[in-house]
Amino acid sequence: MESWILELQEALPECTHTDAVTLQAHSGDKWHAAALPDAVVLATETEHVAKAMGIAHRYNIPVTARGAGVGYVGGCVPVRGGLVISVARMQRILEVNPADGVAVAEAGVLTADLQDACQRVGWFYPPDPASRKESSIGGNIATNAGGPRCLKYGVTRAYVLGLEVVLADGSILRCGGRTHKNKQGFDLVGLFCGSEGMLGIITQATLRIIPAPQTRAALHASFPDFSLAAAAVQNVLQSGHLPAAMEITDAYTLAAARNHLGPGILPENAKGHIIIEIDGRKDAISAELAEIEAVLKSTGATEVVSARSECEIEAIWQLRREFSYSLKATGLTKLNEDIVIPRSALVHLVEFCAAMQQETGIPVACFGHSGDGNIHTNIMVLKNERGEDNRPPADALVHRLFDWVLAHGGSITGEHGIGLAKAPWFPQAVGSTAIRVHQALKSALDPTHILNPGKMGL
Amino acid sequence: MESWILELQEALPECTHTDAVTLQAHSGDKWHAAALPDAVVLATETEHVAKAMGIAHRYNIPVTARGAGVGYVGGCVPVRGGLVISVARMQRILEVNPADGVAVAEAGVLTADLQDACQRVGWFYPPDPASRKESSIGGNIATNAGGPRCLKYGVTRAYVLGLEVVLADGSILRCGGRTHKNKQGFDLVGLFCGSEGMLGIITQATLRIIPAPQTRAALHASFPDFSLAAAAVQNVLQSGHLPAAMEITDAYTLAAARNHLGPGILPENAKGHIIIEIDGRKDAISAELAEIEAVLKSTGATEVVSARSECEIEAIWQLRREFSYSLKATGLTKLNEDIVIPRSALVHLVEFCAAMQQETGIPVACFGHSGDGNIHTNIMVLKNERGEDNRPPADALVHRLFDWVLAHGGSITGEHGIGLAKAPWFPQAVGSTAIRVHQALKSALDPTHILNPGKMGL
Repeated sequence: MESWILELQEALPECTHTDAVTLQAHSGDKWHAAALPDAVVLATETEHVAKAMGIAHRYNIPVTARGAGVGYVGGCVPVRGGLVISVARMQRILEVNPADGVAVAEAGVLTADLQDACQRVGWFYPPDPASRKESSIGGNIATNAGGPRCLKYGVTRAYVLGLEVVLADGSILRCGGRTHKNKQGFDLVGLFCGSEGMLGIITQATLRIIPAPQTRAALHASFPDFSLAAAAVQNVLQSGHLPAAMEITDAYTLAAARNHLGPGILPENAKGHIIIEIDGRKDAISAELAEIEAVLKSTGATEVVSARSECEIEAIWQLRREFSYSLKATGLTKLNEDIVIPRSALVHLVEFCAAMQQETGIPVACFGHSGDGNIHTNIMVLKNERGEDNRPPADALVHRLFDWVLAHGGSITGEHGIGLAKAPWFPQAVGSTAIRVHQALKSALDPTHILNPGKMGL
Repeated sequence: MESWILELQEALPECTHTDAVTLQAHSGDKWHAAALPDAVVLATETEHVAKAMGIAHRYNIPVTARGAGVGYVGGCVPVRGGLVISVARMQRILEVNPADGVAVAEAGVLTADLQDACQRVGWFYPPDPASRKESSIGGNIATNAGGPRCLKYGVTRAYVLGLEVVLADGSILRCGGRTHKNKQGFDLVGLFCGSEGMLGIITQATLRIIPAPQTRAALHASFPDFSLAAAAVQNVLQSGHLPAAMEITDAYTLAAARNHLGPGILPENAKGHIIIEIDGRKDAISAELAEIEAVLKSTGATEVVSARSECEIEAIWQLRREFSYSLKATGLTKLNEDIVIPRSALVHLVEFCAAMQQETGIPVACFGHSGDGNIHTNIMVLKNERGEDNRPPADALVHRLFDWVLAHGGSITGEHGIGLAKAPWFPQAVGSTAIRVHQALKSALDPTHILNPGKMGL
């Protein structure tokens, strides 16, 4: 056993694990890459993280931070072995305090659990990544997680007031605080949001919570053409509505959904589809719903179904989830790329994807958060003659997609981050000056580059 | 003439100024400190900023960036002389684009001008510092400006999607972009927001804009006691309302306002006062206003005046401005500290200030953004026998105030920043680990410390 592991075992006997099952369980996330660490610390307190980090620092051992481990870009794969520090067991919600408008949670608290705790007292933590039932607050912050409701409410960053972070040398930084405004120096809280475990390990967060909206309503609508659905998104916003969420789905995904769900759920001729959720005051919601419905119909919607009860609204969101399952039900592997484009480029994106599909025969399915241009673009991996995934042509399409997105003012990731998966495109995405700034910041906070090495290509 | 100035004059003959009037005009902001630069570059293009910065970099000359120069903490005082680079003449609004939900503006655009440009097309740029008619977007971003509407809409950071920044070596960084989500690497945009000219010079910004709310309404209410006004703030939020703004005013300020405005405007017995603005859908606004009015009355408001027309609403905000003028009209200098406390500590803060006032005879006037605990606390400087400001006892109270704020989980600045004015308290405010992180970041992006040296004590 290496001496740094022996020292860890002595310092943190309850938390340090080197058995094969634990190492295996901490080797990757939802992306395909995996690598075994040499040891895992399952911290239950900040002090454990700090001690483990301090030891790793002294021995110059790579450290990969890990929350719930449900990322999509290999962000918590310990590619250089070493130590994984997991905060998944730091699950205490320390406070939900409407009088201050804050909630305080350890990094391992599942996002849905925090939201439920807020909801029980009539308050609201808006960020809603699709993974909210399995992803943790720490991971949400480390990736600056998004979700459908970001259109109205903003991404995770907008709700983080204060952080406790263990730095590369094992010292504990507390930045920000529990006030709703704070201009004390540089925005350290913001810097750690989305830093993907490369600048420090987030152990605790003080989050801004707001009074829950009084009510919500939703609708979904089918269109004979995707471009009409995209036009409807613009028309709703141009009519002065700011929905909580606006989701769009393309023809390929809809066809897959009809196959998966059977007839009667979606119109046969639907080639574009949108889901809109609004929230606000009870007195206004019905009229707003009717106004939006009118906008959709005047933009060519063939069927509009509106929902007022929680049960009906949930059914619409279930439909949204079924779109994703439907693509899985095709039996094909999907490469889900969370690209973002300027909102006006929605139709252009889908036309580009359709042209790629026509040219290569490889299906490309687009659906996602149309309001902020964050479209999950799924390249479907066809099988070869032996029934195996034929990855190279699909990977080539991902490359073409990213080239197109970057050439059209977009971003190659809006929610998942860079991690390992998108590292090859990172320099092209941000440019050489930004890479230089990233390197300078990385070296400033982690001089020996032990924190999550190999990610973002840094 | 020094050689770096000669080189500047040759490279930027139209922009470089060394006359006494221009130097004097760029020696300070609204705080009392001032220092003359050796030269001023009045840039009208990013390229001018980059060239000037490159020359300063080669000669290792201090550079102080400057927008409209209306800060409150001496942030743009060139304490070590050298070069001031002003972006005040970079006043082009390059784009207001509802289809993408963005506006693109040069750093010198006045915030109010940008807001007006958005409003003309029915869209909305929410951040509203009190200085919005005289402060610029670049300065707003460099200080992460706030304002009353931050309660609902968040601070400037929440609206910055992309930045163009000239770095310490004169290179031009473009970070973020025009997409509403972007997870490409670290949050560089966030790092430059609020960096007070110490990490780079902001030359252009891509801002998120949203559909304008359909309508707004406001009310103001007087209370026989400050603690009732503070309780009303909590009760409104606890009833599920999230107003755009909630302002509170204490007894001292109200008395000054009665003196200043004459009788009949404010009830004689008012010892606490709140202003609330709500916005949203027309169908709901009257009922919401009535609900809030009921909450205020049940919390002890003696007089509630509501406003639905733009003219009436503006009159309420004019009253808010008069509070500030009333304090000036006392003839006393006021030390306006933009401290922030956890919202539940409002009454406690005002009691602490009243006790200081009683003990020392120095008036302390509190008013401000109660919803987010950001209370402008004004220490009034009494005159000595010769009619001069007697600063030492007032300065001592500022010190006691900051001690109290920090001991109660607060922040010594919520809007104005650290700059020179609050640099002495900065280490106490954020702690030694955060100072170390600040130093590391500063050295990473500005290795020779030429950008706005002497600020934040760094």
